[in-house]
Amino acid sequence: MNVKKLVGEKASEYIEDGMIVGLGTGSTAYYFVEAVGKMVSEGLHITGVTTSIATQKQAEGLGIPLKSVDEVDHIDLTVDGADEVAPDFSGIKGGGGALLFEKIVAKRSEKVIWIVDDSKMVDQLGAFPLPVEVVCYGADRLFNDFKEKGFKPKFRMKDGERYLTDSHHYIIDLDVFPIENPVELGTYLKSLTGVVEHGLFTNLTETVLVGKENHVEILSK
Amino acid sequence: MNVKKLVGEKASEYIEDGMIVGLGTGSTAYYFVEAVGKMVSEGLHITGVTTSIATQKQAEGLGIPLKSVDEVDHIDLTVDGADEVAPDFSGIKGGGGALLFEKIVAKRSEKVIWIVDDSKMVDQLGAFPLPVEVVCYGADRLFNDFKEKGFKPKFRMKDGERYLTDSHHYIIDLDVFPIENPVELGTYLKSLTGVVEHGLFTNLTETVLVGKENHVEILSK
Repeated sequence: MNVKKLVGEKASEYIEDGMIVGLGTGSTAYYFVEAVGKMVSEGLHITGVTTSIATQKQAEGLGIPLKSVDEVDHIDLTVDGADEVAPDFSGIKGGGGALLFEKIVAKRSEKVIWIVDDSKMVDQLGAFPLPVEVVCYGADRLFNDFKEKGFKPKFRMKDGERYLTDSHHYIIDLDVFPIENPVELGTYLKSLTGVVEHGLFTNLTETVLVGKENHVEILSK
Repeated sequence: MNVKKLVGEKASEYIEDGMIVGLGTGSTAYYFVEAVGKMVSEGLHITGVTTSIATQKQAEGLGIPLKSVDEVDHIDLTVDGADEVAPDFSGIKGGGGALLFEKIVAKRSEKVIWIVDDSKMVDQLGAFPLPVEVVCYGADRLFNDFKEKGFKPKFRMKDGERYLTDSHHYIIDLDVFPIENPVELGTYLKSLTGVVEHGLFTNLTETVLVGKENHVEILSK
């Protein structure tokens, strides 16, 4: 059984005709978008708001009508994956590099559902690298600051070069475990000159669908 | 008398051989960079760190050796202009659109000197538009938020299109007068998802050179 597919399809049951739907990014959100595409081909009317160029291409290929986050006045529901989820529903996102657009869309959504497989549920955040999206100019200096703070930074790489996000920023992955206070760490990181956004998502979701071997567990706050 | 030239040249007296010098951006910093270029042509050895593509081009033309902020481990002194300066040396910068790089360089500088003409000295900040540099995706939503807060936002325009900064972000100019608490407003703006940086510069300089009709007044904290 493909657990990511199972949970992605389960999330599509939350979609209702006429909704404006935020479409997440990553290997689990992929299956959600596929399921939404099938529903649209069968007559469902929704408007999708994408969280990355990758998801935009996928959704266009499936014939899902799309608008930018700037062309809608609200988003009813966003479904997205997560790299780690703690018991208080704080999480780390950005393994796929789309954390900035994902957070912009999530903050504009009336409801956010995260879809994950069981392995993503953790007691404390931080075993997964914490991505920080930074302006290119000055990035090495921020890297050194993070190093001095013991955050064990690494520039995200792709094909031997620094990975560039859809907004042309770098990503520095931090190794901070355990993250005792995600809100505090997130506030600190966002306050730094040169930091655009970070992968700590707190107080953004109230529903997590957890894919298990043969079923989906629904966690609600 | 060209007051901007007067104060720009005065600031060049603070430069010493061997220094790493942050070179500001704008119509007053222009004259400082010109003066530094003249000193370099006469034998001064310094390394310049620029705050915009415009200043980089100017400095290259003058033969000033340059490094990026990422190639130096410190900056001895940065000289830059400001659009407004309050009695507590908080200021608004970014009329020229270079606030992000200017703040990155200022934060890395051991000493920052602002050079302004007398008209920039104000009792309270905010008569000058306060620039906020934002990620393009979601910028219209931030614009609406600012509107609802009574900040009277305007997108910075150039040739009929939204102005793009050197880092490919938009600028939204706010009309907030008077700004009672610059630190508080700056912290709020920077905390917003989609905001990269803002033009409130607080606790960043201890020396302001004010150009007057026939002399330069030196203000120190």
